[in-house]
Amino acid sequence: MTSIDADRFRETFETYSDIGRTDNDGLHRLTLSDADVRVRDQFVNDLESLGLDVRIDEIGNIFGRRAGTDPDAAPVLIGSHLDSQPYGGRFDGQLGVLSALETLRAFDEHDVEHRRPIELVNWTNEEGSRFKPALMGSGTFVGEFSVEETLARTDADGTTVEEALESAGYRGDAECGPREPIHSYLELHVEQGPVLEEHGQSVAVVDGIYGMSWLEATIEGTADHAGPSPMHSRRDALVAATDVVQGIRRLSNRYDDVVTTVGELTVEPGSINVIPSEVTFTADVRSYDDTIVAELVERVESELEAACAREGTEYELEEIWRIKHTEFAESVRTAAREAAEEAGVSHRSMVGGAGHDANYLTEVTDAGMLFVPSVDGRTHNEDEFTEWEDVVAGANTFAETTRRLSQ
Amino acid sequence: MTSIDADRFRETFETYSDIGRTDNDGLHRLTLSDADVRVRDQFVNDLESLGLDVRIDEIGNIFGRRAGTDPDAAPVLIGSHLDSQPYGGRFDGQLGVLSALETLRAFDEHDVEHRRPIELVNWTNEEGSRFKPALMGSGTFVGEFSVEETLARTDADGTTVEEALESAGYRGDAECGPREPIHSYLELHVEQGPVLEEHGQSVAVVDGIYGMSWLEATIEGTADHAGPSPMHSRRDALVAATDVVQGIRRLSNRYDDVVTTVGELTVEPGSINVIPSEVTFTADVRSYDDTIVAELVERVESELEAACAREGTEYELEEIWRIKHTEFAESVRTAAREAAEEAGVSHRSMVGGAGHDANYLTEVTDAGMLFVPSVDGRTHNEDEFTEWEDVVAGANTFAETTRRLSQ
Repeated sequence: MTSIDADRFRETFETYSDIGRTDNDGLHRLTLSDADVRVRDQFVNDLESLGLDVRIDEIGNIFGRRAGTDPDAAPVLIGSHLDSQPYGGRFDGQLGVLSALETLRAFDEHDVEHRRPIELVNWTNEEGSRFKPALMGSGTFVGEFSVEETLARTDADGTTVEEALESAGYRGDAECGPREPIHSYLELHVEQGPVLEEHGQSVAVVDGIYGMSWLEATIEGTADHAGPSPMHSRRDALVAATDVVQGIRRLSNRYDDVVTTVGELTVEPGSINVIPSEVTFTADVRSYDDTIVAELVERVESELEAACAREGTEYELEEIWRIKHTEFAESVRTAAREAAEEAGVSHRSMVGGAGHDANYLTEVTDAGMLFVPSVDGRTHNEDEFTEWEDVVAGANTFAETTRRLSQ
Repeated sequence: MTSIDADRFRETFETYSDIGRTDNDGLHRLTLSDADVRVRDQFVNDLESLGLDVRIDEIGNIFGRRAGTDPDAAPVLIGSHLDSQPYGGRFDGQLGVLSALETLRAFDEHDVEHRRPIELVNWTNEEGSRFKPALMGSGTFVGEFSVEETLARTDADGTTVEEALESAGYRGDAECGPREPIHSYLELHVEQGPVLEEHGQSVAVVDGIYGMSWLEATIEGTADHAGPSPMHSRRDALVAATDVVQGIRRLSNRYDDVVTTVGELTVEPGSINVIPSEVTFTADVRSYDDTIVAELVERVESELEAACAREGTEYELEEIWRIKHTEFAESVRTAAREAAEEAGVSHRSMVGGAGHDANYLTEVTDAGMLFVPSVDGRTHNEDEFTEWEDVVAGANTFAETTRRLSQ
């Protein structure tokens, strides 16, 4: 097998981490912001330095192609995303792109031959922080969103994706989408959870990703003065909502592999001495079993019904997103397991909890993922961290998996 | 006894309600806003038309004095406030000022003699919506706040009370504070709760006002991605906070006369797929028994301790305000009960849940209050309503109580 150059990889990682680095050593690099444009420039420059054939598509996805010995063979696609969460970490996304870059550098250095072309990709707007939805670049690539609707998406200031691409100089000429059959897609990412760390392992071969539902609930009560309103006469939207949040937390008690989260909750009118009249909150429920996701959605509604009956309030519930579980290709998982064995890296199989560009890629090719550990499971914040030895173990596994897929 | 003129009263009520009237027949008349200045002009005009001696103090409290037969006797002070909540109701505050105005008009019409001078007052900024704190005019009058600190208070735009008074033309010359002993203070107000309506009574003679504590709690957890974080590894600030909110609601179970409310709650970072790292919320706990208020504060902390122990989160708790219960003067309550009997008005005694200007007036004189019903207990919103027959019953009781106090 061909090992990557750990020192060169680290140097590159630090160079990229300087672009949009925060005071607390995190990364603030929202899609098509100045920092994102600078890191794209650096990336394109690095692709060109490797002699790759660079292609930018109409929504700003950047590809760099290394020819294989068989020009007619379907290519292997490898990569991830360079955009970050607001004040996010340096590992999420970036590590996948740079592992792919280092892989091609190592292949170059060691004259690794491969039959299939290998294409490195940086997907536009994976995070969905500036423009919604998340996974925009890969979702458009596979046809989940049309190019027109993607270009028309706006950020909080009303700037469209199209305008942002134009002013950044990243509205490319290439059509967005597969222009040929793709052999496989491989992505390395931080786990964003504690499983690998808890088990003391460096790499996970990802079996698939949870299915999930995003729900938004509104509870209507009656605003009243906090003093003169006896408890029995109240219709307190926050009392009902907090009852539901507790119920949603307890939902996971009955399953061994379910996660439920209430991440947003707002209170109207939000005054210290006024009984809340309206509370809006979200629920995020996930399972690898799609029928369980459906069951969880029903249970959230049952909790709302029960809590509102207790408090005399009313509710509305809307499902704003549902995504089926993703099962990654056995061919990629096998290649990855064998690569980890060959690289002598401690590894396990696991199911991922979060959506990644690889999810969408399953729609057009055999896709798979590798995870490396997240210390304390921290992610989407400046404390995000992965021990460098695990990063190297992951990158070596990634390089060897890529080599195997490209034969 | 002297009855008020119900038709004239109603006409005046409608005239005043037109000043700052909202599309939904509420009132939007924030302190020293254009609408508040217009209603003050109307009020001063009405005082002058009655031949009253008008005095405006340095923080904009407006007084109109009707002489008694004994010029040396301590005056009876009657009134309330003309400012409103944002998109509030037409009854809160205004009804008290206009009942006092109608009382003096009726006295004028029927040549009612009284030994003591009677002073009608409109207190500046009772609501505390534009400038904090609430009860600003009466609080400064009794010396709870210095004139300097009151004048320096700012609204959300940074405008000081002093600047607002100057530009409104309501920075008066009179010193703020009692310039002589005051015999008594009487205020009519809407109940802002459902008790009178539930008991089918028109008037309450208020025994006193709840003591209360305002608390602000912050719970710190750990932000993590909602997908890859197993339930057992989470430190979810919102799960802990909603546990506490439920506990605070249950606190009232153990007392027969306690109210507890969580009115504000904010979630950080507030993203659908991120476990909340920080939740800040308030608690408002009230009882007529000050030792019970102290006990409630301890119990809120116990709930925080227990919830944070369950969730692995940490908390801070700050008491931002504590006010003892207020007991109104027996002399005023007796006069009011006798007046209600004489007016043939159904009445009861009750304890009020909310702070009023009368609370502060107890610090300088014998103070008391009358309540009239609030339909469905609604207040601080445009739906605030009191049946006109109850308004008239209240105003007649008010006029007769004033007459008795002024002998």
